[in-house]
Amino acid sequence: MIIQLKEDISEKQKASLIQEVNEIGYKITEVKTQLGDYLIGIGKKDFDIRKIGQKEGIKDIHIVSDEYKLVSKKWKVKPTSIDLGDGVYIKDGDMAIIAGPCSIESEEQIRKVVSHLKENGIRMMRGGVFKPRTSPYAFRGMGIDGLKLWYNIARAEGIKIVTEVMQVSQIEEMYPYTDIYQVGARNTQNFNLLDELGKVDKAVMIKRGISGTIEELLQSAEYVFSGGNEKLILCERGIRTYERASRNTLDLNAVPILKSKSHLPVIVDPSHGIGIREFVPQMALAGVMAGADGIIYETHEVPEKAYSDGQQTLDFAQSARLADWIRKTFAMRKTFELL
Amino acid sequence: MIIQLKEDISEKQKASLIQEVNEIGYKITEVKTQLGDYLIGIGKKDFDIRKIGQKEGIKDIHIVSDEYKLVSKKWKVKPTSIDLGDGVYIKDGDMAIIAGPCSIESEEQIRKVVSHLKENGIRMMRGGVFKPRTSPYAFRGMGIDGLKLWYNIARAEGIKIVTEVMQVSQIEEMYPYTDIYQVGARNTQNFNLLDELGKVDKAVMIKRGISGTIEELLQSAEYVFSGGNEKLILCERGIRTYERASRNTLDLNAVPILKSKSHLPVIVDPSHGIGIREFVPQMALAGVMAGADGIIYETHEVPEKAYSDGQQTLDFAQSARLADWIRKTFAMRKTFELL
Amino acid sequence: MIIQLKEDISEKQKASLIQEVNEIGYKITEVKTQLGDYLIGIGKKDFDIRKIGQKEGIKDIHIVSDEYKLVSKKWKVKPTSIDLGDGVYIKDGDMAIIAGPCSIESEEQIRKVVSHLKENGIRMMRGGVFKPRTSPYAFRGMGIDGLKLWYNIARAEGIKIVTEVMQVSQIEEMYPYTDIYQVGARNTQNFNLLDELGKVDKAVMIKRGISGTIEELLQSAEYVFSGGNEKLILCERGIRTYERASRNTLDLNAVPILKSKSHLPVIVDPSHGIGIREFVPQMALAGVMAGADGIIYETHEVPEKAYSDGQQTLDFAQSARLADWIRKTFAMRKTFELL
Amino acid sequence: MIIQLKEDISEKQKASLIQEVNEIGYKITEVKTQLGDYLIGIGKKDFDIRKIGQKEGIKDIHIVSDEYKLVSKKWKVKPTSIDLGDGVYIKDGDMAIIAGPCSIESEEQIRKVVSHLKENGIRMMRGGVFKPRTSPYAFRGMGIDGLKLWYNIARAEGIKIVTEVMQVSQIEEMYPYTDIYQVGARNTQNFNLLDELGKVDKAVMIKRGISGTIEELLQSAEYVFSGGNEKLILCERGIRTYERASRNTLDLNAVPILKSKSHLPVIVDPSHGIGIREFVPQMALAGVMAGADGIIYETHEVPEKAYSDGQQTLDFAQSARLADWIRKTFAMRKTFELL
Repeated sequence: MIIQLKEDISEKQKASLIQEVNEIGYKITEVKTQLGDYLIGIGKKDFDIRKIGQKEGIKDIHIVSDEYKLVSKKWKVKPTSIDLGDGVYIKDGDMAIIAGPCSIESEEQIRKVVSHLKENGIRMMRGGVFKPRTSPYAFRGMGIDGLKLWYNIARAEGIKIVTEVMQVSQIEEMYPYTDIYQVGARNTQNFNLLDELGKVDKAVMIKRGISGTIEELLQSAEYVFSGGNEKLILCERGIRTYERASRNTLDLNAVPILKSKSHLPVIVDPSHGIGIREFVPQMALAGVMAGADGIIYETHEVPEKAYSDGQQTLDFAQSARLADWIRKTFAMRKTFELL
Repeated sequence: MIIQLKEDISEKQKASLIQEVNEIGYKITEVKTQLGDYLIGIGKKDFDIRKIGQKEGIKDIHIVSDEYKLVSKKWKVKPTSIDLGDGVYIKDGDMAIIAGPCSIESEEQIRKVVSHLKENGIRMMRGGVFKPRTSPYAFRGMGIDGLKLWYNIARAEGIKIVTEVMQVSQIEEMYPYTDIYQVGARNTQNFNLLDELGKVDKAVMIKRGISGTIEELLQSAEYVFSGGNEKLILCERGIRTYERASRNTLDLNAVPILKSKSHLPVIVDPSHGIGIREFVPQMALAGVMAGADGIIYETHEVPEKAYSDGQQTLDFAQSARLADWIRKTFAMRKTFELL
Repeated sequence: MIIQLKEDISEKQKASLIQEVNEIGYKITEVKTQLGDYLIGIGKKDFDIRKIGQKEGIKDIHIVSDEYKLVSKKWKVKPTSIDLGDGVYIKDGDMAIIAGPCSIESEEQIRKVVSHLKENGIRMMRGGVFKPRTSPYAFRGMGIDGLKLWYNIARAEGIKIVTEVMQVSQIEEMYPYTDIYQVGARNTQNFNLLDELGKVDKAVMIKRGISGTIEELLQSAEYVFSGGNEKLILCERGIRTYERASRNTLDLNAVPILKSKSHLPVIVDPSHGIGIREFVPQMALAGVMAGADGIIYETHEVPEKAYSDGQQTLDFAQSARLADWIRKTFAMRKTFELL
Repeated sequence: MIIQLKEDISEKQKASLIQEVNEIGYKITEVKTQLGDYLIGIGKKDFDIRKIGQKEGIKDIHIVSDEYKLVSKKWKVKPTSIDLGDGVYIKDGDMAIIAGPCSIESEEQIRKVVSHLKENGIRMMRGGVFKPRTSPYAFRGMGIDGLKLWYNIARAEGIKIVTEVMQVSQIEEMYPYTDIYQVGARNTQNFNLLDELGKVDKAVMIKRGISGTIEELLQSAEYVFSGGNEKLILCERGIRTYERASRNTLDLNAVPILKSKSHLPVIVDPSHGIGIREFVPQMALAGVMAGADGIIYETHEVPEKAYSDGQQTLDFAQSARLADWIRKTFAMRKTFELL
């Protein structure tokens, strides 16, 4: 159960409410976010929702049978809108485009990508400064200095920064220079990281785990939300299957399913989803038709020279065409009465 | 290696050619299809293609390093067009729509579906009369009499019939009443069935195996082609993964990959691909954007009363809208310079 | 529900019984096997088992809630014993060893394997004469003549023959020369083949599908049983997963699970299960400890020269040692009070 | 390449050596562990190993083509032995038994488990005080106070502590009370955690990722080793597949494969591997026969009352029997000449 509390609820009213819920056998977790205060009740017994609903200090009460609660559409039907400032949004009914290199490499590289994005009306840039690498001997990113460099260039041009956070200690140092913290596919169930991101007042984009279920992705989002942060975005980026003709198996089924279960916006990453440059545009457009609220893809001036992921990275000409096609496809999708 | 033979090659020329190829260590399989005669050479050593190419009786010679040969784009760049007669095609550059119930149930049901298809300009109807069922106690279909009934109604209206063949003995009895033999996901590697379908002069649509790789699907098509039948269609219908929120995981990555590897047309089945009625349209349109040459989906007047697969079956109103959206999406896709 | 009928039930009694079961909303399938006559009732409603149990002509009645019925342990607690004659059995409480080459290649090869088996007290020989191959250009086996040759040599030495049947038309021609029909992993859901094997009075060993679930394997066995043949053996041979360091992922979990759900004997195939010769013995012994009633593995005089699967085939010295270790491990397992 | 350095190598000699290796196009990582100093060279070109081998200050040089280097058997053939003190080891040729509850719950519970282990000669106890939970509302463990409580009781009885570390900040606080840091299946690719564990002089047991490959597990171990810690143990605990009849699919193939690729000891966790109490013993013994150097399983006085994982936890009577069977099975395995 989710109980939304009134802002002016007294401590005494809250204590009385918690006691009553405990008495029907529900364990209570208090959640305080940027947008509201909630009591989350976990239990299995049936109870009389009206009886509790009449208590003082309550704005609303909902029964949510899913394992995840606060990210469920069952209590919050209205889609969550992520406002990044300067008129940049990620939200249902809109089409966010996020593009940029796999790794931040140099000032020159950043400048070129930023120019490319500006020319094509793209307002959000992706890029990694902390790189999770399977091998300890591989390039691990430019680190916090790379992020500062990037920030100075991007901010001047009104470009928002989307970048991966790998561990708790990075959250604070990254904070001034980051618009969206990305949780990578290997950290989707790094619960300590999720807990800490709940304490931050910036948007968090959670990528689906390498072999994560849709349910687990929603549970991971629940961690951040219940930690206090409602600014959440979900990202489908392909799952691990037996098929090796593609890097991952982009599971576009997840898009309408996530949209039906949760009020959070859903983004598709076709670059990791297929891992083959010449097919990234098709899969991006497929993602749009599947119902995505945004597309995140990799672009670099000279993909062959990228420090990482060059094989799935678009050059600027391809990127420009794709951004155009994404917008046209989305415009058409809006004319259909899809769910 | 694939050697295309001239029609007027003499037996002596052919024998000399085979001998020469054998001498360089290649094993020869002779293939005779509706469209041509071929020698398929299997071996690993390097050889001088010009030397063999100069022999008499040869139209052309190609090196194909893939495990599959005749279905590869490496020797036949031009896409294969499946001509079903009466102006009905499945081919690259076109958008085939195939719709109909999971199971053929009754004359009345057939008539209603046929009318629905006619009204919406859909020229191909799917439906099962032989049903592969996991449980021996489930409904196994109306059998050959159902097919004859269906044929009489559909043919009168110019509707082509797409239906599953489960075993060798059915091929002949189904022949007069079938336009496209469908090989189901459980039979993709039923090699005897594939061999026998190679001897038939009707189109064959091969569904990807339940956990089949893209490579295996192409190898299965190679069986039919090398058996003598070039009229082949490939179908992505979802694969088995750990995810249970959907019936299967529709692998749309397979679409551009198959199109890049083979000259055969590729169809997408969103009904089995996601298994949830309200999301079938999104996945169909995603399939179009991924590059499919056609969409096959399930429709029934009253899906809730369908003998099988009702949960993933569209009603006629949904089907009519979807057919329209598929055509619009395809028209837009054609304006993009996608691969 | 499973109703076991008395042998002397009259047609009238049976008709009355079927009518009564139909009236409670259950659909009846009549099953007649080598060992008994059954009525299988499929339905969902609760009913009074005693009321039906009192009807005349009934030996026993059981409620079986699994999707599979006749292969379930819920009605037949006593393990099924497969008697191949001449004192050769596959059964719970015993350890069957089946060894032999992947493919039957020649008279000389057969003689050498047969001698090796005799010397090591192994009474069952595996080998393929019809080979399912992913590529149409690969060796497809010696066919029925190879089987006859093999039969003549093996029978003289008291060795039983285990060999794969690929299609319905082979069942009859193989019959005189076969002791156990093997259904391969690509045919586990070839339902027509399973139906026809139900009509035969010889043992059938069903391999788990390439990505088949435990439930599906039991359903496939149900096909054969409900077709009339109770002589069934289940075989775990590895499943397809994302892991590529081994050919398949041998799922030994399946052994105790299958044994707990079904009364049928369970065999493990470590050769296909791991696909790496030097590790086949470990996995065979692991299979014994997991609870297998038998082990089937590949052996050849010179594995490197085998027509197929050489990389996972033991030479005779390795095979002799393994057979000894299997017996010792099984003897120890019997001293443990495992389930 | 791996270059083992002499202890008395001079800075000048090392600089010269690094320069020479850089000149042939290899990137150098310096590694300093408890046991030695190494230079790891990453590159692809062929080079003259003798020429570099002649340089001063080198103990030995090895070419290792695997992606992982220091954990490979290619340079260190002798198996790694983990010495926990007081005569407790995890090593090849020995059989480690680690048992205990999923979660540490109370002083009373700890005392009972410790007594049970002592009575059965088990020297290592598992238990979680920091619990990774899919849902933020589930029990997350007793934390560091639970660990201290446990330590006081266990240490007095000579029992070693194996417990999960979830994040970097816990490493230091856990240090005085922990014998083996366990890296859980959700953290196998938490590279920051692995890096930091490289700086610790205590053993680390890395569980295979939920859908991790064998190669990835070795790469994760490479992180810790290259960070400075050679005291590593690998653990197979089941992988995620499509099969749902068991909690995970215990991949015992991984045991001989890991043992053949790496010098590190390999442990099997049958409790998580199958997730069903009555089948844990069979899978444990199967793990022994597959070649494991140890078994880790869950036990609790009253499994039904355990805070977590009760369904896969043995009671003490089952645990006592299993420990005995494990030892007997291992004693028999040693008599076989397995790889």
